[in-house]
Amino acid sequence: MEAEQNRHFGDARFVLNPCSHLSPDDIAYFRSVLSPSSIVQDADDLETFNNDWLQKHRGQSKLVLKPSSTEEVSKTLKYCNDNMLAVVPQGGNTGLVGGSVPVFDEIVVSMSNMHSIRSFDPVSGALVCDAGCILEVLDKYLEQQGYIMPLDLGAKGSCHIGGNVSTNAGGLRLLRYGSLHGTVLGLEVVLPDGTILDNLSTLRKDNTGYDLKQLFIGSEGTLGIVTGVSILSPKRSRAVNVALVGLNSFDNVQAAFKRSKDELSEVLSAFEFWDKAAIQLVKDHLLAGANDPLESLHPFYVLIETSGSNKDHDDAKLTQYLEGLMNDDIVQDGVIAQDTTQIQNLWAIREGIPEACSKAGAVYKYDISMPVPVLYQAVEDMKNRLIQKNAIGESKLFTSVIGYGHVGDGNLHLNVAAHEYSKEATDLIEPYIFEWTAKHAGSVSAEHGLGISKNNHLHYSKSPSMIQLMKRFKQLIDPNEIMNPYKYLPDQ
Amino acid sequence: MEAEQNRHFGDARFVLNPCSHLSPDDIAYFRSVLSPSSIVQDADDLETFNNDWLQKHRGQSKLVLKPSSTEEVSKTLKYCNDNMLAVVPQGGNTGLVGGSVPVFDEIVVSMSNMHSIRSFDPVSGALVCDAGCILEVLDKYLEQQGYIMPLDLGAKGSCHIGGNVSTNAGGLRLLRYGSLHGTVLGLEVVLPDGTILDNLSTLRKDNTGYDLKQLFIGSEGTLGIVTGVSILSPKRSRAVNVALVGLNSFDNVQAAFKRSKDELSEVLSAFEFWDKAAIQLVKDHLLAGANDPLESLHPFYVLIETSGSNKDHDDAKLTQYLEGLMNDDIVQDGVIAQDTTQIQNLWAIREGIPEACSKAGAVYKYDISMPVPVLYQAVEDMKNRLIQKNAIGESKLFTSVIGYGHVGDGNLHLNVAAHEYSKEATDLIEPYIFEWTAKHAGSVSAEHGLGISKNNHLHYSKSPSMIQLMKRFKQLIDPNEIMNPYKYLPDQ
Repeated sequence: MEAEQNRHFGDARFVLNPCSHLSPDDIAYFRSVLSPSSIVQDADDLETFNNDWLQKHRGQSKLVLKPSSTEEVSKTLKYCNDNMLAVVPQGGNTGLVGGSVPVFDEIVVSMSNMHSIRSFDPVSGALVCDAGCILEVLDKYLEQQGYIMPLDLGAKGSCHIGGNVSTNAGGLRLLRYGSLHGTVLGLEVVLPDGTILDNLSTLRKDNTGYDLKQLFIGSEGTLGIVTGVSILSPKRSRAVNVALVGLNSFDNVQAAFKRSKDELSEVLSAFEFWDKAAIQLVKDHLLAGANDPLESLHPFYVLIETSGSNKDHDDAKLTQYLEGLMNDDIVQDGVIAQDTTQIQNLWAIREGIPEACSKAGAVYKYDISMPVPVLYQAVEDMKNRLIQKNAIGESKLFTSVIGYGHVGDGNLHLNVAAHEYSKEATDLIEPYIFEWTAKHAGSVSAEHGLGISKNNHLHYSKSPSMIQLMKRFKQLIDPNEIMNPYKYLPDQ
Repeated sequence: MEAEQNRHFGDARFVLNPCSHLSPDDIAYFRSVLSPSSIVQDADDLETFNNDWLQKHRGQSKLVLKPSSTEEVSKTLKYCNDNMLAVVPQGGNTGLVGGSVPVFDEIVVSMSNMHSIRSFDPVSGALVCDAGCILEVLDKYLEQQGYIMPLDLGAKGSCHIGGNVSTNAGGLRLLRYGSLHGTVLGLEVVLPDGTILDNLSTLRKDNTGYDLKQLFIGSEGTLGIVTGVSILSPKRSRAVNVALVGLNSFDNVQAAFKRSKDELSEVLSAFEFWDKAAIQLVKDHLLAGANDPLESLHPFYVLIETSGSNKDHDDAKLTQYLEGLMNDDIVQDGVIAQDTTQIQNLWAIREGIPEACSKAGAVYKYDISMPVPVLYQAVEDMKNRLIQKNAIGESKLFTSVIGYGHVGDGNLHLNVAAHEYSKEATDLIEPYIFEWTAKHAGSVSAEHGLGISKNNHLHYSKSPSMIQLMKRFKQLIDPNEIMNPYKYLPDQ
């Protein structure tokens, strides 16, 4: 009983093994394996590693280790496993579900010292690199070679590719290049017992045995630590166009999307939407004084990007598509970026939404996926619920409900802004939103993952038999439960 | 010791459980669960199910069961598991590694009675269907909706989508639409103990827990039976062009491929090559009397396909690309199909190669992948070896070495034609070809899988630690080893 309490409110190691506390011997061992600068114990220096990006989750780790090689990761994990010391793998620490910071005082294993590009094949586009490489650094490197990373997300300047893989990051290019389950060619993974799974294949096709790497994609560091990644990068498109349109209804957003699949087809590379509440926050907090690219406010906005090999062809396709939308009254207004700066400015609106939301106060963030036709109904139903409960307005609990996301992926980012986080506020949204999602056969975590925020909501999207099998896999690979404990799988 | 002998030369069930023989009680149980027409015991009727497509592998099963629903599959497997009866799942039985026929007298569970389309979403393109649906039937269905199956292969008229998923089939569209690990959205799988894993999601993004379905993609029926598939189909392209070119060297094949990635880029949908030995066989056995589309014989041929949304744009891109290749002397001759019939005729050459090879006598087939630059070296090294051994020629063991395949995927189909299968012939090719592949960091099975032909060659492409983990997964899910025994994983 006491142990169970500790599990939730006390010392993590105590649950794992009452005998194991971080001792001088442990530190001495890590000093024998890692360089002195790779061992962080200073209280101030530990702060960054203990706090997550949202400033919502805070751990109490007393030790951060920054191995410089796969062998160092292996020795570190083996020691921790043998001595029942809990471990949190950490990449760029940009996750949104508290998955990359300790719950209690787990040892943080940061991958920031492993950031080398190992190889690149200019014929196939296969890139092999350390897990600690920053996504944007890799994309810049590939740009020089005429290639592009198959994924892109707002946190690209900080997030690690190893973290992207471990969380199965989705982002802005999934519509075009598909998920990491398709683009990752191979992984190097260290298991909790120190075993190195050396599967850094650069082959596009390989049907020799169970595709083990797939299990580590999206497992959030609960089965081991990804130390190396082989990924297939596509050719960088010579021509990129971006248009922004304003629309009157989500029905029209859907109509525009359906047409884009026919008319833009193979050059369509992004189809992102946001609503009036989102643009209002961006204008208030980020674009103050700057001109709105469209003359008046619209209920909905869609950013459409095309990427292709022939600028004239892409221009012709995009122009014809947009003219059709205007003629048929599907969009009310629109602009096409005329140069790279304008392209960046239009994308800055979309990418600024999360930051603008966070400046609006306390934000409850939900990342759900569902069939496209009911995508925006989630926002409307939530808004109506809060109105009915008399809980939204200037002097009420909540200030606004914001919807934006990736239409093409059926992925809605539903944000509910409150004056402050409170149990009363939480209870008005949850489990309502999860039940709503389950009712519409959706996922309660489309791309952000589970971490500590969503692990106990797994049953809304997965059946008992699936959760049971997940637990058996976890037990098989991490029997001591040292890897990223208290997260991902449900407590019960 | 006796049991071990039986494992290889005797009665399969004897190894699994000395007590379990197919008894009248077993038959009575299956009769109570399945309709009479779903139980095949007649010797003549059993023939088809016991023999594989290559007529190379032959089982001795006395019982074929054809369940009509997931529940029937569940009851069947649970009974077999409880009674230690070995099971071979069978789809269209078009595999090339003996994976879909019994080794001894395992019970065949044929999926041919489960062939319904369950749902199709015309907005997202998500198709949900029974595992026993024939690939071509699904593609024709999608054609009516303006969509296309993301995979295509020569056996499309017979193969089942469940078999495609279970073998992670590659085929002709992988270059464009990626592997099944990316396009399969969800699976319904029955585990050996009868548990139904209901993960038939139609969501494009879902990060709730370990992506269990991935483990069943390519596991060749060794972990359970896939009963339902949800797959993301892309929009069918309005315009399709096909060109055939003749080239002097494999260096030029590579040069043409590199350019195609730049100039055809997003409309490139196939880049297939074959050599002079391959076209010679097709001309001898399939095209006798018909005109060769190119005037004279060339050392290499490449079939290039584009698929896009705008015919004028695609024509312009392809013409410019081909003119560039001609001007720079990369290709010596070429034709562009002018209509659908010509497109089909050009594809018929490529798709006819396996059949033409099989008419050449006994054919040793290897399906390997490796970095593109060494792709054809595999053929030349094999040819040189047989010349050195004085083993190739009209009156020798072997008649020809043929190379063809998917350049874009680094996937070579290496066929070695002999007058007849013999140990002497086998020993001249194996393990040489596997060692060659391992030396070039390739895969000994790019897309055909392991089955009974390649299971003991797994170590050429996977490390001991990976094979060890695969065995632990197998043990976890199928502890009684009833699922497709003696295959896939190495004997030792």
